[in-house]
Amino acid sequence: MIKSFEELIEKARVLENKKVAIVSSLSEHTVKSGILAKENDIAEPVFIGDKRKIEEILKKLGKEPSDYIIEDSKSEEESALRAVELAKKGEVDIILKGNISTSTLMKKILAKESGLRTGNLLSDVFITEDTSKDYPKLIGMSDGGINILPSLEEKKAIIDNAVKVFKRLGYEKPKVAVLSCVEYVNEKIPSTVEAKKLQEMNERGEIKDCIVEGPLALDLAVSEFAAKLKGVEGKVVGNADILIVPNIEAGNIFGKSFTYFTHLKVGHIIVGAKIPILIPSRAETEEDRLNSIAIAVFMENLFE
Amino acid sequence: MIKSFEELIEKARVLENKKVAIVSSLSEHTVKSGILAKENDIAEPVFIGDKRKIEEILKKLGKEPSDYIIEDSKSEEESALRAVELAKKGEVDIILKGNISTSTLMKKILAKESGLRTGNLLSDVFITEDTSKDYPKLIGMSDGGINILPSLEEKKAIIDNAVKVFKRLGYEKPKVAVLSCVEYVNEKIPSTVEAKKLQEMNERGEIKDCIVEGPLALDLAVSEFAAKLKGVEGKVVGNADILIVPNIEAGNIFGKSFTYFTHLKVGHIIVGAKIPILIPSRAETEEDRLNSIAIAVFMENLFE
Repeated sequence: MIKSFEELIEKARVLENKKVAIVSSLSEHTVKSGILAKENDIAEPVFIGDKRKIEEILKKLGKEPSDYIIEDSKSEEESALRAVELAKKGEVDIILKGNISTSTLMKKILAKESGLRTGNLLSDVFITEDTSKDYPKLIGMSDGGINILPSLEEKKAIIDNAVKVFKRLGYEKPKVAVLSCVEYVNEKIPSTVEAKKLQEMNERGEIKDCIVEGPLALDLAVSEFAAKLKGVEGKVVGNADILIVPNIEAGNIFGKSFTYFTHLKVGHIIVGAKIPILIPSRAETEEDRLNSIAIAVFMENLFE
Repeated sequence: MIKSFEELIEKARVLENKKVAIVSSLSEHTVKSGILAKENDIAEPVFIGDKRKIEEILKKLGKEPSDYIIEDSKSEEESALRAVELAKKGEVDIILKGNISTSTLMKKILAKESGLRTGNLLSDVFITEDTSKDYPKLIGMSDGGINILPSLEEKKAIIDNAVKVFKRLGYEKPKVAVLSCVEYVNEKIPSTVEAKKLQEMNERGEIKDCIVEGPLALDLAVSEFAAKLKGVEGKVVGNADILIVPNIEAGNIFGKSFTYFTHLKVGHIIVGAKIPILIPSRAETEEDRLNSIAIAVFMENLFE
């Protein structure tokens, strides 16, 4: 069970190096992510984009271009297509968005002919260090990035995806809290009704390899103290590994609060395709990008 | 402009003491809130509940019961009614929920005959210290507590309420960010459409005394760095005083994350009635309850 990003980086270093395609590596910020992955022995970057420009950036950053794999490409679209081809042939294991619009990149990845679709829902799995505990552990959150108003079936798939990720990180039977703003079903709050249904689906064995409880407010999901005071008991209560948010806004605001208010380490990856896809926010630090790459290197053949 | 809870407590101390009715003061935790308010010279508690029990608790906590105002009452309902009567007569200025169900208390407060209704929407205004900045300031968030699925008109009222509170704290023309998960209007994400409408209502002068911008993701609302990187400009962008969340779940999760993940000081009050109402979560610390009382003492005649 990996308990911190420090441990994650250490363990990623031991694994056989994966290749990460950095699509449209045309800024220093983007190229640095690749350099950092290589120098930390986490992954081998495959820079895709205007070769001369990439070489220039590498030189400017004090690196020898011939030490790096560069795939020449003249446009964003061509870069995206090249990354997809390399992934299809198994020559890269992870796709990281560089200086390209998310929609251009995702269109190529999700195209029928890409060979990268699995039939599974794509979702963003966000991970941070759980500072609600006095012992170290990671905590996951989904989905603050992809699915706008997930239906019950989509929420089930979001849980499945996050559970798969956490199992790879050594959390054998992850404890999943389906969040809302209260811990009881209130018909006026649809997210409480759905949370209960997800718990029941888990009890019936329709959601596997994890324990699901909901609805729970955040305090009850992570704090044993709050749970005790409120007299709420459960297997997940007070000790969740994964938090499922009711809507994309809640997840996006919650996720960003870790970066901007708590200044904690974070990482996040999109799973559901044949290989992990990393779509960092433009303002994401290089360290957080490295964390995301480190998570991704554990996800080989997560969906087959 | 009050920049921290420390400053808020100091300034509250200077004001003439307000009286806070503590409805159903039947636990040590609840009684301590009142003692703390008195000893910090923030407010004079009026304990309502079984007098003998309250005296016992005071003695157990090493206090002299005759130093405190106690209103004898035999039931939760009677305690709530007594608090409402005292508030109506102007004998208490703030109502703080003790060991009583929120619904019992709110029913008495919101009853037509209570005299405490103003015709305004009630909303919860949450305040914390803004650690996204390298200089001290407070930041507000609403509504993570009361309104489940606010309509556009209700969101306008939520903004009005939060702006009134921040003006009292010395923020002359508060900068209001209407949050969603992206910074552009996407018809598939209703919260982005409403955020834009709220900005337009502000531009037309329908929402006054503040500057409203939206939709904004959290990073753009609070981080000048993120705004610069993403090329987004505005008067609120990067420097919001008040964050309006799209739904109660987002607000509740965001608000609780400050307590459980960041361990920051928080306070929150319900405004919209004739006097501020404090509904602390059971697991809220005494310090956070004191912060809420200190906010409330600045809110005299906020709605008339």
